[in-house]
Amino acid sequence: MADSVASKKPKLTFSQGEERVDWRKWKAERKEIKKQIKESKLIKQLDKQKQEEEEKTEAALQQSQRENQSGRSYTVSVALPGSVLDNAQSTELRTYLAGQIARACVVFCVDEIIVFDEQDEDVKTVEGEFNGVGKKGQACIQLARILQFLECPQYLRKSFFPMHKDLQYAGLLNPLDSPHHMRKDDECEYREGVVLDRPSKPGKGSLVNCGMWKEVQIDKQLQSGLRVTVHMNKIQNKDGRLHKGVVVAPHKPRTEGGLYWGYSVRLASSLSNVFTECPHKEGYDLTIGTSEKGRDVDKTSLSPFKHMLVVFGGLQGLETSVDADQNLEVTDPGVLFDLYLNTCPNQGSRTIRTEEAILISMSSLRQKITAAFPDKSNGS
Amino acid sequence: MADSVASKKPKLTFSQGEERVDWRKWKAERKEIKKQIKESKLIKQLDKQKQEEEEKTEAALQQSQRENQSGRSYTVSVALPGSVLDNAQSTELRTYLAGQIARACVVFCVDEIIVFDEQDEDVKTVEGEFNGVGKKGQACIQLARILQFLECPQYLRKSFFPMHKDLQYAGLLNPLDSPHHMRKDDECEYREGVVLDRPSKPGKGSLVNCGMWKEVQIDKQLQSGLRVTVHMNKIQNKDGRLHKGVVVAPHKPRTEGGLYWGYSVRLASSLSNVFTECPHKEGYDLTIGTSEKGRDVDKTSLSPFKHMLVVFGGLQGLETSVDADQNLEVTDPGVLFDLYLNTCPNQGSRTIRTEEAILISMSSLRQKITAAFPDKSNGS
Ligand SMILES: C[S@@+](CC[C@H](N)C(=O)[O-])C[C@H]1O[C@@H](n2cnc3c(N)ncnc32)[C@H](O)[C@@H]1O
Ligand SMILES: C[S@@+](CC[C@H](N)C(=O)[O-])C[C@H]1O[C@@H](n2cnc3c(N)ncnc32)[C@H](O)[C@@H]1O
Repeated sequence: MADSVASKKPKLTFSQGEERVDWRKWKAERKEIKKQIKESKLIKQLDKQKQEEEEKTEAALQQSQRENQSGRSYTVSVALPGSVLDNAQSTELRTYLAGQIARACVVFCVDEIIVFDEQDEDVKTVEGEFNGVGKKGQACIQLARILQFLECPQYLRKSFFPMHKDLQYAGLLNPLDSPHHMRKDDECEYREGVVLDRPSKPGKGSLVNCGMWKEVQIDKQLQSGLRVTVHMNKIQNKDGRLHKGVVVAPHKPRTEGGLYWGYSVRLASSLSNVFTECPHKEGYDLTIGTSEKGRDVDKTSLSPFKHMLVVFGGLQGLETSVDADQNLEVTDPGVLFDLYLNTCPNQGSRTIRTEEAILISMSSLRQKITAAFPDKSNGS
Repeated sequence: MADSVASKKPKLTFSQGEERVDWRKWKAERKEIKKQIKESKLIKQLDKQKQEEEEKTEAALQQSQRENQSGRSYTVSVALPGSVLDNAQSTELRTYLAGQIARACVVFCVDEIIVFDEQDEDVKTVEGEFNGVGKKGQACIQLARILQFLECPQYLRKSFFPMHKDLQYAGLLNPLDSPHHMRKDDECEYREGVVLDRPSKPGKGSLVNCGMWKEVQIDKQLQSGLRVTVHMNKIQNKDGRLHKGVVVAPHKPRTEGGLYWGYSVRLASSLSNVFTECPHKEGYDLTIGTSEKGRDVDKTSLSPFKHMLVVFGGLQGLETSVDADQNLEVTDPGVLFDLYLNTCPNQGSRTIRTEEAILISMSSLRQKITAAFPDKSNGS
């Protein structure tokens, strides 16, 4: 059960399922209701009629929009050992380092981060109690937790991240500022939300907190506490008590909207499990290992791919990760990957830290990815 | 006198000129001398004879080597506002951020870092007392000091960096691990050193601490306390009490040895002074401004240059730096530079932090610099 915290939608480990009431929102809503009661029945009826018509055209609109928009079909995954945290010199810096990794991945639109164990120590304790960020060890679970916390839009954190020692220095973390982290008034086609524990009328969908002034009524009844991706209806009734939206698969903002929509986090108990537990049934079709001993990145170009995986080593490099993995017979990490790349030829420091290597490597790969998908590069 | 701390060789602000005696080294030397006395006069004479012959061939050897080696003729400078430090959330992180900037520049072999003032506040206080890293403001001088401290080889820090509040969290800084930071036994053509306050025989050169077991006797008499770059003689008398070397200009390791040799630090009281106070009399012949509003870096290539300057903005970007500069009539920063580049098209975060932007931008420029100097790219 190493991946009980490993899905993008946090499961019970994180969410306590408690009902949390936002009183300010409740008050705002009550005010709204009173206002509506004052209004004439006629206006109400007209409104309703108009709304029903609009909802019908909505489906057609969204469909045509989907066809016009250029989504991104491929995914990019990054894997690194949790042990990188043990390279930090204080508990604050341990947290800060996790934040640097999250930001580096977001800047380059990484869709999945895999934290692998190269010490065979964490995995057994994934479901137990944790001792907070201060302690050495348990680095994988701590890194995974902080990555998930940062990925979660601020307005959903109360629901999914009850106070936890791993998060005690969360105040030091720089925000990711990714497109799915929206402010109350931002207009966006998609929004992340949590299904509320609030009765909804029979035949109507559940209410979802999407971090807006009003709640969003979705098209389905879903279990409360679930994290969902909502496609907002193009046409909304501005005076309505609720917004309207449709629950969609979490990849839709990327594949149809062409938006970067955060990353999922996966724990792997060894380097080999990074490959074997790939969430895409076709597996990763382009795997890249990174090392100063790799081939000069400048002399490499990329072919189009569906699911790219870029793997980074820890303090001792990927050799150590390979050595620690009892499933792997090889000793040369180069043979594990389609490409084994030196992404910083002629480096001026004897050693590049993993958090730096992510920014450096993804920056040199970014241009090559763009070149591999020439249709998309006109887009911006 | 804004640049009293701005040269690579720290001046009086940093060095107190005090005599510092390394007792361990003294003892080792005394032991060595006693040993030598025991040896027969004959061996000594033979040794001396041999040494004199070797010294004659040395000059010829170094000359021919110089001609064979491919040095790097161009320089790369990076400029950024000191105000970036004010974007850190604690005093520890303020120091850590300075360290990130130093490391980013070293990884990409940056030769000069210019810290400019975009708030017109620091400059007046450069020569006064400093209040330590904890305080807001004085960010330029704090950043410059930490950059210089990190650049200085560990074995020279005692001589040039007496205890200072700006350096109170220096223990948190990650080492630069650049080629000129050597361990005692490392063999290298060049070494950084400090001239010792120790009488040397008439007609002989000064003694220099280059961080080796033995001191180095150079070819000149120089003032004690000076930081010098020493070209070690190719042939050393292994049993001698001293190493021998020649003082050279600090650019020699780069221009003749092809080695990255750290950066110099310069303070500029405004953005325009970054350009006008250029230490190269020809000025910078390729200037690049960076901004998400710049031109797509993928659509740019570089021509060969002598002195490249890459300028980064702070929290508010280069617009703010331009606005704050009373010498600049323009409002659009783009017109100040030969190129104004977006080095991370399609970024997944709304904003990239300056310390991240250095790694990202230098990584995408690195490949273009390599391409601009095709002769050198075969070298590695
Ligand atoms: C501290 S380094 C590991 C250094 C280790 N001595 C080695 O030989 O790989 C941590 C990680 O950063 C990445 N890295 C460092 N330098 C790199 C380079 N020049 N090119 C690509 N990746 C690099 C690799 O993923 C590496 O495992
Ligand atoms: C926090 S950003 C400044 C953001 C500011 N809102 C702006 O419009 O420029 C700090 C610095 O990082 C660099 N930077 C950020 N994003 C960049 C990009 N996409 N391309 C090049 N440089 C960038 C620039 O030097 C910028 O001044």
